[in-house]
Amino acid sequence: MILSDSTTVLNAGLPSITEAVPRARVLQLNWRPPAFGDPAAARLMASLQTPAVEAANREAIAAVHAVRPKLVDVRPAREAIGFLASGRRLLHAGPPIAIEDMADPVRGALIGACLLEGWAATPEAAAQLLDSGAVEVAPCHHHHAVGPMAGVVAPSMPVVVVTDPEHTGTRCAYATLNEGLGKALRFGAYDADVLARLRWMGGTLGPVLSEVLHQAGPIDLTALIAQGLTMGDEGHNRVVATTSLLARRLAPVLAGLGARGVEVMRFLADNDHFALNISMASAKLAVDTAAGWPGSTLVTAMARNGVEFGLRVAATEDRWFTAPVGPADGLFFPGYGPADANPDLGESAITETLGIGGFAMAAAPAITRFVGGTPADALANSIEMARITVSRHPVYQLPALGFVGSPSGIDVLKVLDTGILPLINTGIAHKKAGVGQIGAGVVRAPQEVFLKAIGPLAGAIGGTVDDAGGGGTLP
Amino acid sequence: MILSDSTTVLNAGLPSITEAVPRARVLQLNWRPPAFGDPAAARLMASLQTPAVEAANREAIAAVHAVRPKLVDVRPAREAIGFLASGRRLLHAGPPIAIEDMADPVRGALIGACLLEGWAATPEAAAQLLDSGAVEVAPCHHHHAVGPMAGVVAPSMPVVVVTDPEHTGTRCAYATLNEGLGKALRFGAYDADVLARLRWMGGTLGPVLSEVLHQAGPIDLTALIAQGLTMGDEGHNRVVATTSLLARRLAPVLAGLGARGVEVMRFLADNDHFALNISMASAKLAVDTAAGWPGSTLVTAMARNGVEFGLRVAATEDRWFTAPVGPADGLFFPGYGPADANPDLGESAITETLGIGGFAMAAAPAITRFVGGTPADALANSIEMARITVSRHPVYQLPALGFVGSPSGIDVLKVLDTGILPLINTGIAHKKAGVGQIGAGVVRAPQEVFLKAIGPLAGAIGGTVDDAGGGGTLP
Repeated sequence: MILSDSTTVLNAGLPSITEAVPRARVLQLNWRPPAFGDPAAARLMASLQTPAVEAANREAIAAVHAVRPKLVDVRPAREAIGFLASGRRLLHAGPPIAIEDMADPVRGALIGACLLEGWAATPEAAAQLLDSGAVEVAPCHHHHAVGPMAGVVAPSMPVVVVTDPEHTGTRCAYATLNEGLGKALRFGAYDADVLARLRWMGGTLGPVLSEVLHQAGPIDLTALIAQGLTMGDEGHNRVVATTSLLARRLAPVLAGLGARGVEVMRFLADNDHFALNISMASAKLAVDTAAGWPGSTLVTAMARNGVEFGLRVAATEDRWFTAPVGPADGLFFPGYGPADANPDLGESAITETLGIGGFAMAAAPAITRFVGGTPADALANSIEMARITVSRHPVYQLPALGFVGSPSGIDVLKVLDTGILPLINTGIAHKKAGVGQIGAGVVRAPQEVFLKAIGPLAGAIGGTVDDAGGGGTLP
Repeated sequence: MILSDSTTVLNAGLPSITEAVPRARVLQLNWRPPAFGDPAAARLMASLQTPAVEAANREAIAAVHAVRPKLVDVRPAREAIGFLASGRRLLHAGPPIAIEDMADPVRGALIGACLLEGWAATPEAAAQLLDSGAVEVAPCHHHHAVGPMAGVVAPSMPVVVVTDPEHTGTRCAYATLNEGLGKALRFGAYDADVLARLRWMGGTLGPVLSEVLHQAGPIDLTALIAQGLTMGDEGHNRVVATTSLLARRLAPVLAGLGARGVEVMRFLADNDHFALNISMASAKLAVDTAAGWPGSTLVTAMARNGVEFGLRVAATEDRWFTAPVGPADGLFFPGYGPADANPDLGESAITETLGIGGFAMAAAPAITRFVGGTPADALANSIEMARITVSRHPVYQLPALGFVGSPSGIDVLKVLDTGILPLINTGIAHKKAGVGQIGAGVVRAPQEVFLKAIGPLAGAIGGTVDDAGGGGTLP
């Protein structure tokens, strides 16, 4: 092909097609083929792009937004979560996974939980117990719970109880209490210090917070987190404002509890991430309202177990769509690098599922110092995520974008149509159990889970390629 | 004048000059004549635009930025401020003013202070006492103190003690403790509730905070306020993050103090503006480092007494340049409007003098809900203020503008050269004593004070029109 000097090449295909053309004369369009170039998935996607699905998604997200989660209590997990009421049972993060396939940090956290519960006296005995099949494990999401990183919940651990009787009836959501940075069970650490802190959390922190909430609660978490968003939080990796507001709210009651109150207040004063788990439980309670919603293609869970990424969608309710997960891209603490990172881990992406975290980065320019990028990137992320969501949150607003609501309600169809993958803020765990957090960054959900979901979704919703007829976008 | 259809008119003069030309064909330049069109002032300004003055300003602002104010104690004003150690003496906001000329809210606050100190038994007796000349008054700024609104400091009131021995030696800065919103002495209220709260502040809040600071202090205020700026504060009218961080930091110690600790914690939990006065004292300590700096045209104080705006400049040290002050432009609380507003009041503009508050609005998009405007205005304000400042603060950063330092160090010469007046965030007081705050908004320093300052500055620095020779910008 001979090009005259004045010719400009407009390329809508892969950049490699125009590799031979001088760079300055190529205008590369940022167009991506629908469904990541998978024609069968694209046809299924198109078959679901109907007014009925649109209406179902609108109704489902409205129901999600109507929920106003309240922090009502802190209880031992065995009292709050039926599955943990008896026997040797533990919860873990992400989609289901066999113990022998687990990532090292998750395995480490399970070992620590066995030690904490007194089921084993040594790490070796705990490992043997796990490998023998004597401990039953299940994903947190199967039991109305969410956990950061390894996400391990043991019967004796205190969990926050979040509910909204008016909109969710007796349904609650649960999350463990945040241990703080450094060595922690959620990164697979189980040394004496970690276990001592967990025992203190079970014996003092949980009961004291329960007592405080009976006096000062319930706490309206929507109002609290919304105020945090006006103070530079994004409700996931940056919750220092929400934590500070909550601590200040509880402090007058804590100040009346003597020495135990002092201990708890000191813990709250030293842990800038304390509100993370509470924000997660709050999002879980709201988003679960859409689980099983007929005809809806909204995402209801994104969770990682350190090996696989799991996706759940409204119309297919409890079904998981999974794919291998990679490590996050971000900033590493001094002395660590990508080679040390475990593949992405944890259930904190429930915040992005609702529409904060990575979706609300415009509210939190300072988070770029933690996860990488620039404040301009933070704005761009919130703008981009609005292309794959069906709504904007009515209360969680982004001051820097003129107080527009944060993009909320990820639509599988929009992800496939645009090729834009949900962006998740995340911590980075060392791949070896117990080393702990080694950085923070952002990660994209893998495209495979959306491709895997579209067939079953089409089946559940009743659309097929042949009877599509709706407003398909394929040529 | 006949214009062809294709002519565009470029107008650098008043918009009225081109009123007859169709709007679409006029490009209005935002040029203003130097020194607000005053040729004599412009010549004096030009005479000072020399490398020597530039160097002096650079050195002065570097010295200001080197100060790292620490909150070390809370003491009764009579122990901290020599002027208040004996006799019937009170401090007030702004430049000097005779009692008979004072605005009603300031007069009300003085009456309240006389009642608080037991110098009079009734408001009428207090008014008589004031009018008789039996009470000596002086501006806060004359005694290393700053106060919001009426700024009245009485001997029994507790004041924060802020210092940095390494950079300010024995010099300290002082401010009263913030009373909270609603009826308050700083708005001229002196009813039984107001006085009861002031007595509690003197008897409990001050002593308890002193005790807490001896255990948990000193507090590095630069670090605290800088963190607040990453959390949506601007360090003046919005300090909810700084207040929350401080409360959370002090809470573990307060929790150990029993019932008195509970009372104080509840006060801190309920008052989102508690950190305002502390931010003011912190700014005062830093900025005073430039007071009297030879050859420097940096602003060292902007303060209003409700009648006049007062300006102080480095090279003319203690001298005040004053002009009548107007009311702020902003948002009024329901039921109130501009006709109810007292002319602008208070010394909180010390924060803008340092380079936060209105200068750091880019950090606080949510403040526009309180003072008016949009988040885009907030960005524009911080960008505009950089045109009249000589530096950027090395620690106080603006996340939304890529973490650039907040514009810091107002140069009288730059104000005159650009015609851009310093922008101040402010509360709006009712003109009648005791009604309280009725809104919040922004106000510009009046141009007259800069015009009045330039002659004495030229005299102090030694430049004259005749021997100028320097890099003047006048034709």
